[in-house]
Amino acid sequence: MLKLYSFGPGANSMKPMLTLFEKFELDREFEVHRIDPSKFEHHSNWYKAINPRGQVPALEDNGRIVTESTVICEYLEDAHPTSVKLRPDDPYDRAQMRVWTKWVDEYFCWCVSTIGWHRGVRYMAQALSDEEFEAHLKNIPIPEQRVKWRHAREGFPQDMLDEEMRKIGVSVRKLDDHLANNEWLAGGMFSLADICNFAIANGMELGFAEQVNKHDTPHLIRWIEQVNARPRVQEMFARIPREHLGPPKE
Amino acid sequence: MLKLYSFGPGANSMKPMLTLFEKFELDREFEVHRIDPSKFEHHSNWYKAINPRGQVPALEDNGRIVTESTVICEYLEDAHPTSVKLRPDDPYDRAQMRVWTKWVDEYFCWCVSTIGWHRGVRYMAQALSDEEFEAHLKNIPIPEQRVKWRHAREGFPQDMLDEEMRKIGVSVRKLDDHLANNEWLAGGMFSLADICNFAIANGMELGFAEQVNKHDTPHLIRWIEQVNARPRVQEMFARIPREHLGPPKE
Repeated sequence: MLKLYSFGPGANSMKPMLTLFEKFELDREFEVHRIDPSKFEHHSNWYKAINPRGQVPALEDNGRIVTESTVICEYLEDAHPTSVKLRPDDPYDRAQMRVWTKWVDEYFCWCVSTIGWHRGVRYMAQALSDEEFEAHLKNIPIPEQRVKWRHAREGFPQDMLDEEMRKIGVSVRKLDDHLANNEWLAGGMFSLADICNFAIANGMELGFAEQVNKHDTPHLIRWIEQVNARPRVQEMFARIPREHLGPPKE
Repeated sequence: MLKLYSFGPGANSMKPMLTLFEKFELDREFEVHRIDPSKFEHHSNWYKAINPRGQVPALEDNGRIVTESTVICEYLEDAHPTSVKLRPDDPYDRAQMRVWTKWVDEYFCWCVSTIGWHRGVRYMAQALSDEEFEAHLKNIPIPEQRVKWRHAREGFPQDMLDEEMRKIGVSVRKLDDHLANNEWLAGGMFSLADICNFAIANGMELGFAEQVNKHDTPHLIRWIEQVNARPRVQEMFARIPREHLGPPKE
């Protein structure tokens, strides 16, 4: 049985999760072991024994661990081909798919992530005492992640937030332009390019409504709705709870 | 005939170039069209008609253009399988290969690139008059690249250079640790993981001798020598000239 260690269906965790849902049956062919970010479970020793980088997601397949969300998606296609194909057969189309998944990993996910941390993870970081926070930082293996947690606690510099919002603007414009003339992102089919971009873009019509809306990005909105209408996407959201990080409830 | 548009054999240009040399015969099966960085040829209109992002490398295959160095490498394996296999067959090993190529693109290449710009591109940028420089910036399609050129001309902030040197330290330690117990980076064979990392690491024993040397990183040095000993690597260096950017000669 394939086993995915991940947060709920959002961001990098959603990439392999949706790939699994599209290809396989939950409980019969794969299971999802949810890691609780509010308990910093991804930085716990038991999880770092699985992924020493302390990052989700990770896939366990017959005793072997595959990490890095986009790599896991391609691995599932390589190791477990099914009748559901999520990569174009034509090498040129497949290359276009990879240009899109690479762009998510190198550009799109980072700007959205920083704003997400500013709006959500910040409250987790600020709820800790100084002692608890410093003790927690020691559990985080990646130096750049420690810096990000410190930023979340102290507040991201405004010029950084402004720059990330600029990049979000570039990103949604790029997606909308491409989707104006294409039903899907690559190869004329629903592929890992759509999965990896949807993992970041879904919900932006709520959280970034001033940039992602029917007036400014109609094609992106159409595509987000189109992915959300897929039966396996609906099953994923129905069966795997989402986290709701944010300001403490009144 | 496959046609690669690229700079000389270094950094991102070297990734598909070495892949081509390992798999095919120069002049008979592929050609290399060298773009002259000292003439800003990659920002010229004729080249931006090929790659609108104004970045090298780009591959032309039967009238179609594939961009992004790592994507091109995988494309060559997908579209033109030959007896020379540069990807492991086992899906798990292939995933490990992709973790390494992804790491180059997201971490290793950037820190080395910034120092390379500081040491080389800076002199090109500073040789221009203010007017020439501003006119040139207008030809660069990617906003982040315009910022990088401005940094190169005005000088990269010292804290940025320090941070990149720290990341270079992390990178060469990571490579050396892994190569201590592995002949090649992934799957027990020379693969795209080695090609993409070698494209960045080769020459560091000269340019970063305080960090990459027989005492501190013996396994990395052994691997760099091992790749350099490959006949097709030697052929590549013999046949395709390298650029020598740097301070003006006395």
